[in-house]
Amino acid sequence: MTAPVDPPARLLMGPGPIDADPRVLRALSTPLVGQYDPVMTGYMNDTMELYRGVWATRNEATVLVDGTSRAGIEAALVSLVRPGQRVLVPVFGRFGHLLVEIARRAQAEVHTIEVPWGEVFPASVVEEAVRRVRPHLVAVVQGDTSTTMNQPLEELGAICARHGALLYTDATASLGGNPFEADAWGIDAATAGLQKCLAGPSGSAPITLSERAVAVVRARSRVEEGLRVEGDPDTDDPVRSNYFDLGMILDYWGPRRLNHHTEATSMLYAARECARILLEEGRQAVIDRHALHGRAMLAGVRGLGLEVFGDVAHKMHNVVAVHIPAGVDGDAGRAAMLADYGIEIGTSFGPLHGRVWRIGTMGYNARRDAVLLTLAALEQTLRRGGVRVPAGGGVDAALEAYAA
Amino acid sequence: MTAPVDPPARLLMGPGPIDADPRVLRALSTPLVGQYDPVMTGYMNDTMELYRGVWATRNEATVLVDGTSRAGIEAALVSLVRPGQRVLVPVFGRFGHLLVEIARRAQAEVHTIEVPWGEVFPASVVEEAVRRVRPHLVAVVQGDTSTTMNQPLEELGAICARHGALLYTDATASLGGNPFEADAWGIDAATAGLQKCLAGPSGSAPITLSERAVAVVRARSRVEEGLRVEGDPDTDDPVRSNYFDLGMILDYWGPRRLNHHTEATSMLYAARECARILLEEGRQAVIDRHALHGRAMLAGVRGLGLEVFGDVAHKMHNVVAVHIPAGVDGDAGRAAMLADYGIEIGTSFGPLHGRVWRIGTMGYNARRDAVLLTLAALEQTLRRGGVRVPAGGGVDAALEAYAA
Repeated sequence: MTAPVDPPARLLMGPGPIDADPRVLRALSTPLVGQYDPVMTGYMNDTMELYRGVWATRNEATVLVDGTSRAGIEAALVSLVRPGQRVLVPVFGRFGHLLVEIARRAQAEVHTIEVPWGEVFPASVVEEAVRRVRPHLVAVVQGDTSTTMNQPLEELGAICARHGALLYTDATASLGGNPFEADAWGIDAATAGLQKCLAGPSGSAPITLSERAVAVVRARSRVEEGLRVEGDPDTDDPVRSNYFDLGMILDYWGPRRLNHHTEATSMLYAARECARILLEEGRQAVIDRHALHGRAMLAGVRGLGLEVFGDVAHKMHNVVAVHIPAGVDGDAGRAAMLADYGIEIGTSFGPLHGRVWRIGTMGYNARRDAVLLTLAALEQTLRRGGVRVPAGGGVDAALEAYAA
Repeated sequence: MTAPVDPPARLLMGPGPIDADPRVLRALSTPLVGQYDPVMTGYMNDTMELYRGVWATRNEATVLVDGTSRAGIEAALVSLVRPGQRVLVPVFGRFGHLLVEIARRAQAEVHTIEVPWGEVFPASVVEEAVRRVRPHLVAVVQGDTSTTMNQPLEELGAICARHGALLYTDATASLGGNPFEADAWGIDAATAGLQKCLAGPSGSAPITLSERAVAVVRARSRVEEGLRVEGDPDTDDPVRSNYFDLGMILDYWGPRRLNHHTEATSMLYAARECARILLEEGRQAVIDRHALHGRAMLAGVRGLGLEVFGDVAHKMHNVVAVHIPAGVDGDAGRAAMLADYGIEIGTSFGPLHGRVWRIGTMGYNARRDAVLLTLAALEQTLRRGGVRVPAGGGVDAALEAYAA
């Protein structure tokens, strides 16, 4: 007979998922309540309000999509873009390609601009492309975890508004660990997941939509077959998905509580707890904590003599990529870290696969002990892999960064 | 400051979601492991094998879709049906309408046949429609929870095979509590959720695909932008969804482990535990248990003088619908059950909304004490609502059914 799950101890210091905060794990094990129990709808309302705090927005339309972060991306793109409409995607890593992939499947006319992996776009380059393409939507990743880069978004909202485009961003890898200001930056739609800086498990996708975005969604609204009554909105050109139709999802979360999916109660508990503990610590305090431990890890890997990948000035706080030293088998190094120390670090995708390791400091693991343990174990792993490393170089540099 | 979730005690005796088995809640709170940790991929493989047992199939393609049961339905329909292809949906309740809705959004040419709510289709009626419509796919709900009816599927696989159609069924409300034989019945695709007889939370959708269904999916396969390498499959006509592209989902669960979504680890733990405890008790034993407690509840509601809705011979084991007695406000009765006894029972949709109550006996709550408590509380609620009920009539009838 198969035994219950009983995983070994792990410290997940890769690019995410990372260890969930124990408080989130406890929330996950909470008994269920019914879908329309006033207690449940109260929790849904709490969750909307808590995520307004996380996203820094007053958007009424702030809910969860029941799926992984990729489900949130697809819900945003299929609900905001009609087939044939133009979408501009600035691509600076693997997750920009994912936006292209999803938008193409939604039959958008997709235009891209690219910079080499490890760089970000100056706002002027995006504006020039917007002027040329005249897109209905600009879709851009904030933090592309494949390269660790954090695309500045501050000016993009105004650029899009000037040219009549909507601005969508995928903040999965960055939200919580780096500044994000949905309202102040003029973001029309943003989505994320729980498994990075929010310290939860994958499987729920927070989303927020501006009034402008809601109007676009509502223009395609329709009440489902079997629920529709006289006078309900209908359309000949609905969103090409039922599950990801944000109009329906908003009707379910809104006062009408129109039945759509059966809300994933346990994941809602987790998502609510992720936001609750983030706001309890303080949104800026959590960003500052990610900045601090990210600086320490950056100093530490440099102290071990490793070369950092990409434009460090535009790196996310919560992850660093380092070139795997010449002569070292990257996968063997990761396997040794896992087998000998129970610590997971990551590789990357595409052109960076096997060329870099990615080391995260995020969510519950943006902690001093997690940083120092990882550096101590990495030093031993490099040394035993034949790399000449300064003894204590990683830990000393990190401690200096903490002392500064 | 918002407090952590702390719901009141509830006994969920509606049509689902119901209380999760405590073992499933404990599995949910298990610490995470990395996405490609051998421990995680081992759990994924276990889950595939366990669900083969639940579905009674040898289908290699037996995995989870990361979303609610509706996500599983959409994944099956958008992956199996190209725009313009004919789909036949026999509709006998609200969830038949949902299949119509989802297939239409996938731009299928949808044909329906209908019977009144409370009935099911004779196989000959389905065959006649298949002969006339010549569909690519027949999509039918097994247990339509809106009416409590359980559509016999035993003959439909052979009918579809004879006419060159694929057979898909949504077994969300029925799987685990009623017979289901994917291979013996010739089912090409089936999906479910955890929140009914499987005793888990909503948010993960088990799915199984026959080799014939896999071939249809594979003919539209494509490796994602940013991951594709020379020689990988590509197509000009991919599935119109990335998240629900079963070819990609199978590549992620299969030996190639191609990155797609980040598997929802906690929900995978839950899904694995649901199947594990079901098979530990025994698949037939669990069905028998649902039959037993369903019979007791049926006898009990009749013993209270309530009239049962629909064709009882074709009722699912795990839920019964009763007409709300004349003069009783159905919502007030449900509210009293919840407020006074912490017991949730359900209403229904569309033509049955406010006309029936639906009472479930499923998953963890297919238990003698849950049945007797519900009947005792319902008697008091009816009595205080002004209905003349035989004192002890529900409990006595249920106890007689247990004794039989």
